[in-house]
Amino acid sequence: MDNIQDISPFGKDGREEFGSEKITNSDVEDFPKPVHRLLQRGIIDYQRDINNFTTSMQSDRQHSIITGVGPSGSMHLGHIVPLYFARYLQDQTGARVYIPISDDEKFLTRDESLQSIQNYTRENIRDILAIGFDPSKTRIILDIDDSSVVYPLATKFASDLTVSQVDAVYGDSNNIGEVFYPSVQVSHLLLPQLVYGEHCSMMISGYDQDPHVRIARDIADKSRYPVSKPGCLLSRYAPSLTDPNSKMSSSEEEPIISLNDNDDQVEEKIMKHAYSGGKKSREKHREEGGDPNQDVPYKFLYYFFEEDDEKLRELHDEYRNGNILSGEMKKHLVEKVSQFLNEHRTRKKALGPIEEEIGDYRLTKTERQSALTRVGYSTELFFD
Amino acid sequence: MDNIQDISPFGKDGREEFGSEKITNSDVEDFPKPVHRLLQRGIIDYQRDINNFTTSMQSDRQHSIITGVGPSGSMHLGHIVPLYFARYLQDQTGARVYIPISDDEKFLTRDESLQSIQNYTRENIRDILAIGFDPSKTRIILDIDDSSVVYPLATKFASDLTVSQVDAVYGDSNNIGEVFYPSVQVSHLLLPQLVYGEHCSMMISGYDQDPHVRIARDIADKSRYPVSKPGCLLSRYAPSLTDPNSKMSSSEEEPIISLNDNDDQVEEKIMKHAYSGGKKSREKHREEGGDPNQDVPYKFLYYFFEEDDEKLRELHDEYRNGNILSGEMKKHLVEKVSQFLNEHRTRKKALGPIEEEIGDYRLTKTERQSALTRVGYSTELFFD
Repeated sequence: MDNIQDISPFGKDGREEFGSEKITNSDVEDFPKPVHRLLQRGIIDYQRDINNFTTSMQSDRQHSIITGVGPSGSMHLGHIVPLYFARYLQDQTGARVYIPISDDEKFLTRDESLQSIQNYTRENIRDILAIGFDPSKTRIILDIDDSSVVYPLATKFASDLTVSQVDAVYGDSNNIGEVFYPSVQVSHLLLPQLVYGEHCSMMISGYDQDPHVRIARDIADKSRYPVSKPGCLLSRYAPSLTDPNSKMSSSEEEPIISLNDNDDQVEEKIMKHAYSGGKKSREKHREEGGDPNQDVPYKFLYYFFEEDDEKLRELHDEYRNGNILSGEMKKHLVEKVSQFLNEHRTRKKALGPIEEEIGDYRLTKTERQSALTRVGYSTELFFD
Repeated sequence: MDNIQDISPFGKDGREEFGSEKITNSDVEDFPKPVHRLLQRGIIDYQRDINNFTTSMQSDRQHSIITGVGPSGSMHLGHIVPLYFARYLQDQTGARVYIPISDDEKFLTRDESLQSIQNYTRENIRDILAIGFDPSKTRIILDIDDSSVVYPLATKFASDLTVSQVDAVYGDSNNIGEVFYPSVQVSHLLLPQLVYGEHCSMMISGYDQDPHVRIARDIADKSRYPVSKPGCLLSRYAPSLTDPNSKMSSSEEEPIISLNDNDDQVEEKIMKHAYSGGKKSREKHREEGGDPNQDVPYKFLYYFFEEDDEKLRELHDEYRNGNILSGEMKKHLVEKVSQFLNEHRTRKKALGPIEEEIGDYRLTKTERQSALTRVGYSTELFFD
């Protein structure tokens, strides 16, 4: 079979900077079969230390994934994709999954009240719980609620980070909380190893989170702690609904498919707002064909929603030659998205109160103490 | 009776900058009688909003004192003085006393391991407990151990503080933890009001802590929180043992009287190392007299150890005219210091394990929740 990436609407190179490397076909083949479509299709396409990770998976050594959530709004499709990928790896290889929720960062960097950030946090947690991770292998860390472990770790790491180091990576900051925040992020990225001892860990995220990994790797490299450098799998951005060449993002001006949308809203948003790569008239489209690379519905299908490679190839080719119309492509996407959201919503509705549901996903006292001890705190001095 | 400050070896003006004001005789008279000698003698000599505080005391309204401890070594005499003064006010007027212990700051600003800072923290807590505060009106806050309340508060205040604001007050920082720390200090200074609602609160400290009050007052002034601006009582520094014109500080080069010193060590340090304002020979001293203003033992007696004003005046005058010799002044100080340390030590020895003793001095769950709610956290979102 031909390489599915031949019909990728995302082009060849997502990124090349700061030392992350392109994921090769051979890297992809090291993952358990069937390889997840995000990897197979080159949506997750850059990495650091991917070989350590696949070797750990193959030899049944412990390995962890860190994939964070920033609670600045309701989650949209782009947010949930890396989490479903993490769930897939957990199912396949028993990976531990750590999900830090950066409520502190979102408060510090957005013009939102604490109350609003906290409401989004609750809502986001419900979506995370609906994914169906194995609670014995999954931890949700809330920076504010878990500050009894997050702040001591961050303080330790902060002592190794200068303002100019942080400025060089992130640029200027609006307030002193933002300046401190990278040390919180380092805590997130080293946490699985601090809890369970040195092992292979990988962040999974969009390209924009790579700076955090670079800083965490620098800290890990100082060999003051029993940790190795965390790696990462970096993902292209989910496309915007209205612009095939920009990134899905929650902003007031732009329609976006939220995890809360019902079938009618999904249909309206896609049929009405999705940018089409088709021709202006049905006749012209039949005659000249459309451009799947500029067609947002096709991009969504490729990115996440059409699981069947053969079906995807058919959509690509028949759209290109004009046999499939823009409306048909959109309808196909509406069906897929509605199905996905309905399944997600059904699991979400089945959840009890999140205060109860989250219990099994929180760090235990032993896990907290392990982490604090490994950076040098003497837990006999902790009175709680 | 003449003003006791006429025989002050500390000069008239300790400080004049950034808007704190000299404490007047009339301010001093507003305190309950007998007025504590630190105020009477002008050791505590600058203030902000002292009238709010004395009015609150006089009209039996709630009022709080914040006086911090930085655990970077064993406590010495200079550290314990403001704490005993706070104890005196608590006894006299029922003041609440909040004692934040900045273990995080000391780790971030000193070249000391976490373990070492934590050991000093334990030791310092034992000394604080030995002072005999009323636990129902006293709270000891440990930044690391209480980070579940300290970090959320600091994050909230950090959003209002820019790097340039902090740089302007504190100068350049060595690491990003230091940059963030002023927001922790604001949390300390506003904490009593956040726990119990708006009321008059005062920091008691050496001059060097005034910048923290200035920042906390700026934040309080933004009227986003139900707090009024904290005031302060600022104190001259306890003198160095070897130099009458510099400040007592823990450094390797210099002998210092630690709270751990036994009678022999106290005697040796004072007799051997205390700088004398006397003449080189006994004969010359008898003939010309000594200079009490340059005599460290006299300075110590004035500062803290000779409670009796008449006795102090006698020491001053008789030293000046040569009737009291340097060795006699030193011996008098040795007796006073030994008595003070023995009493302190006796109370310290009577303490049980600090994990138990500190229990009644820690923030309760209700107090934590009150503080978090008052800055805008919704405690229903706190899972613990």
